Amino acid sequence: MANDAKIKIIPLGGLEQIGMNITAFEFNDNIVVVDCGQSFPDEEMLGIDCVIPDIEFLRENKKKIKGFVITHGHEDHIGALPFVLKEINAPVYATKLTMGIIEGKLVEHELMDVVKRKVVKFGQSIHLGDFRIEFIKTNHSIADAAALAIHTPAGVIIHTGDFKVDYTPVFGDAINLPRFSDLGKRGVLALMCDSTNVLRPGFTPSESEVGRTFDHIFHEHTKKRIIIATFASNVDRVQQIINTAYKYNRKVIVEGRSMINVISVARELGYIKIPDNTLITIEEMENYTDDQLVLITTGSQGESMAALSRMAASIHKKVEIGPNDTIVFSSTPIPGNEKAVSKVINELYEKGADVIFQDTHVSGHACQEEIKLMYSLIKPKYAIPVHGEFRHLREHGKLAQRMGVEKENVFILKSGDVLELGEDSGEVVDEVPHGTVLVDGLGVGDIGNIVLRDRQSLAESGIIIVVITLQRFTNQLLAGPDIVSRGFVYVREAEELIEDARYVVEDALDDVLSDPKADWATIKNAIKDNLSDYIWSEMKRRPVIIPIITEVE
Amino acid sequence: MANDAKIKIIPLGGLEQIGMNITAFEFNDNIVVVDCGQSFPDEEMLGIDCVIPDIEFLRENKKKIKGFVITHGHEDHIGALPFVLKEINAPVYATKLTMGIIEGKLVEHELMDVVKRKVVKFGQSIHLGDFRIEFIKTNHSIADAAALAIHTPAGVIIHTGDFKVDYTPVFGDAINLPRFSDLGKRGVLALMCDSTNVLRPGFTPSESEVGRTFDHIFHEHTKKRIIIATFASNVDRVQQIINTAYKYNRKVIVEGRSMINVISVARELGYIKIPDNTLITIEEMENYTDDQLVLITTGSQGESMAALSRMAASIHKKVEIGPNDTIVFSSTPIPGNEKAVSKVINELYEKGADVIFQDTHVSGHACQEEIKLMYSLIKPKYAIPVHGEFRHLREHGKLAQRMGVEKENVFILKSGDVLELGEDSGEVVDEVPHGTVLVDGLGVGDIGNIVLRDRQSLAESGIIIVVITLQRFTNQLLAGPDIVSRGFVYVREAEELIEDARYVVEDALDDVLSDPKADWATIKNAIKDNLSDYIWSEMKRRPVIIPIITEVE
Repeated sequence: MANDAKIKIIPLGGLEQIGMNITAFEFNDNIVVVDCGQSFPDEEMLGIDCVIPDIEFLRENKKKIKGFVITHGHEDHIGALPFVLKEINAPVYATKLTMGIIEGKLVEHELMDVVKRKVVKFGQSIHLGDFRIEFIKTNHSIADAAALAIHTPAGVIIHTGDFKVDYTPVFGDAINLPRFSDLGKRGVLALMCDSTNVLRPGFTPSESEVGRTFDHIFHEHTKKRIIIATFASNVDRVQQIINTAYKYNRKVIVEGRSMINVISVARELGYIKIPDNTLITIEEMENYTDDQLVLITTGSQGESMAALSRMAASIHKKVEIGPNDTIVFSSTPIPGNEKAVSKVINELYEKGADVIFQDTHVSGHACQEEIKLMYSLIKPKYAIPVHGEFRHLREHGKLAQRMGVEKENVFILKSGDVLELGEDSGEVVDEVPHGTVLVDGLGVGDIGNIVLRDRQSLAESGIIIVVITLQRFTNQLLAGPDIVSRGFVYVREAEELIEDARYVVEDALDDVLSDPKADWATIKNAIKDNLSDYIWSEMKRRPVIIPIITEVE
Repeated sequence: MANDAKIKIIPLGGLEQIGMNITAFEFNDNIVVVDCGQSFPDEEMLGIDCVIPDIEFLRENKKKIKGFVITHGHEDHIGALPFVLKEINAPVYATKLTMGIIEGKLVEHELMDVVKRKVVKFGQSIHLGDFRIEFIKTNHSIADAAALAIHTPAGVIIHTGDFKVDYTPVFGDAINLPRFSDLGKRGVLALMCDSTNVLRPGFTPSESEVGRTFDHIFHEHTKKRIIIATFASNVDRVQQIINTAYKYNRKVIVEGRSMINVISVARELGYIKIPDNTLITIEEMENYTDDQLVLITTGSQGESMAALSRMAASIHKKVEIGPNDTIVFSSTPIPGNEKAVSKVINELYEKGADVIFQDTHVSGHACQEEIKLMYSLIKPKYAIPVHGEFRHLREHGKLAQRMGVEKENVFILKSGDVLELGEDSGEVVDEVPHGTVLVDGLGVGDIGNIVLRDRQSLAESGIIIVVITLQRFTNQLLAGPDIVSRGFVYVREAEELIEDARYVVEDALDDVLSDPKADWATIKNAIKDNLSDYIWSEMKRRPVIIPIITEVE
């Protein structure tokens, strides 16, 4: 008997960029949401702290939502959760470490008492309405990452989450390839697979390779203090540094707020093992010589306020960098951070330190051969590449075809697309509201394009404010024009220019105010146009000009 | 007889970054300046167009300056010339193509009639005071690049300029290695060598390698229109595209203002050879089918206004991108441009185009083995690494030592250092004024740190202007407070907040104005502090707040 059930897959983010992953799965009156991430602001989003998905669609379907199922604890998969849970209070399902990290956020947002949570083990399934969701072990740059097998009346959908294939992981088991193979044998409707590294040929090296490099570095730099910067959430990386430190009889200091937070959660939950008497506080550092110390620190991306950046800029209170330091970047710059990282490296060099950044990092994402392996085991009918920019999704689509997926069964989706999938057909049938919401301080969504455009104009050339006071009804000029500027020119050295600008405004006012009935819009435009023309002709700049009229009786 | 003459080498830029190259050589009353480049503004230099060196030292020594000697026509070596020549009118010496490009700038700045120029051939020397400067052929990513052998009473100094070793260049001869060898045999005092690629092992491939890739691409994409983006100044690259187009019977269109300019100079001076009936205008494009066309365009760095970016964003007037286009990025993103390039690539993919960026670019700078080759031929007594960030200079210094330069004879200089070199000793003896001057529109140097900090604050959170009108002497509030904002929140949707802000200011004014003698500073601070506290508590933001008081009688 043919199965004519159909499932809807509705990505609300994560397909135009690497970040802000969130996808809804809908069957009848049940919706399950996989991941709920944030993304980082683009350069042109001036002053914005973070970006979260527009969840209008979830809001409209609040009652159907059975839960949030989270694949792993990275910000691009959990970062929007606290904001979204404030509006849609559904239970959260995740593995142990992932839940530990989520709980840190819930505490911060005072949501611990409100939000139901369930820790799920690998191999275990949860039942949410018509869905059964099975958590499958994978490997990634954070421990406890899961793929999901979403069992639906229309068939099984496998969502890999972020993954790599690591046959020799540092902690826990290798990815559960046999389980993917089992599912593949029984028939998988669709594979939603990580596209991050699809442009890279070959196979991502094992995390344990980095351990070998650390050993080599410790062996070569026996006299020096070693400082290693890496991603706060890469618990396995930190474990390897600690292991190497222990082997070479060094004490370990962990520095940087996010690093300390993650390590303490990981330690509490048993995801990291620190031998006794290995960890010391930064205050105890002075009791040891350089050759007895390792610092593990945040700042591998050149973030200006992170610990390593503060050390490099000589504004760290406890650590002073010098010629007896060897600094290891156990990371690779995320696109957009290259210049910031260079700056920190140069500053470290200038203090006489050695800097190492070769062979000290491996990616957490599958390269082409690993992605092919997944297709060969799972043999999905449909391929829905996820977790990538358009170029990644597109190349992933080609790879899926080479792996035997029919061309018409490859879906390169956009956020908001409603893909309806059944055994016999798949089709984008609708589009739901989607987009981004900007978070600036406590404000969520109150910054839009107009405000951003204004910030851009202000940033480019600054602002000139022209204030005049008029007598009501007569338009007689009682005070002003006064000119105030910010970010335009250094006023003390440009008195003449400002003086001339005042004359220009006065001339314009003479003209426009000769008509006692001139309205404010006309007066403001006269000020703006004349001043703008003058400044452009003098300096080829276009500051924001704001004429302000006050009126007294 | 011992030579006790000493020469001073005074870099004024180019040693803290890749960019803004300029170095003065001083002997007795003679100064020669090598290169005069600009750099591109950092991210935090909001609104700045370009950055040029502070030439206070040259200004103070105007009379001694015998000339500007230019190694090649890239912006980081010639970009500041027009600005500097306006203050210091000394003759300019360069090879033919370099001079052609410089003259384009002089025309733009109306300096052609004022500035003396002399075109120098390879092998030729010019005499400037006590200096004899010999131009030696090298290879680089722009044709006609020269190294300089600066013959001084204290010895010979070789400045490589930007170079690579290309045994099979596209145009002209390979680098004149025998001449470096000759000079080395006779004794070279110091080598100032390009450090750009010193972190890269091996040997930079020949420019002609890229030609092979083009051939391969044209061979594979016979049905499609081919669009190739590259650096406007890479004349040899353009030549190879034209050669390939000719071989495959395609017409060539050159698009993008800077590209058209450089190609026309290069063509006029004989640095590029275009077969008859190969070049067509963009208007003629419609007479040909896609498989008969190649576009060469600017925009390989994702620059928002460049031709390719406009095509990708569908705002180019003549070129529409579609599934029948193959777009080749014959370039590598300059650090800082990665995200912009990704954006353009994604847009092109979204239009269905194919995008190629592998094996289509080679660097113009020497890698480690080439730098070693120079040391092995030249055998300098002193090594002064140039053209790099601190990390490059430092690694270059280590390499120089491995090549036999004594540790104390390696000088890692900073801009402004005065290095005095003689046969027996080298020492930094002084520091001269140095730094950067920001250019914004027509303003050169009128933007300083205060203005940039203001722009940063404005960009982060926008501005709130509070205007009140007071009666002179009585401090009676006649009008206001009026609140105007830009870049803060979208006012139409935040009426309540603005209304509350007004109450906060009114309360503050009630308080402070109760004293009729309150001075303006006190009143302004009261407005600022209260409003700032209120906004921070409400939204955790810190807009720039400007209170403005006008006074009427």
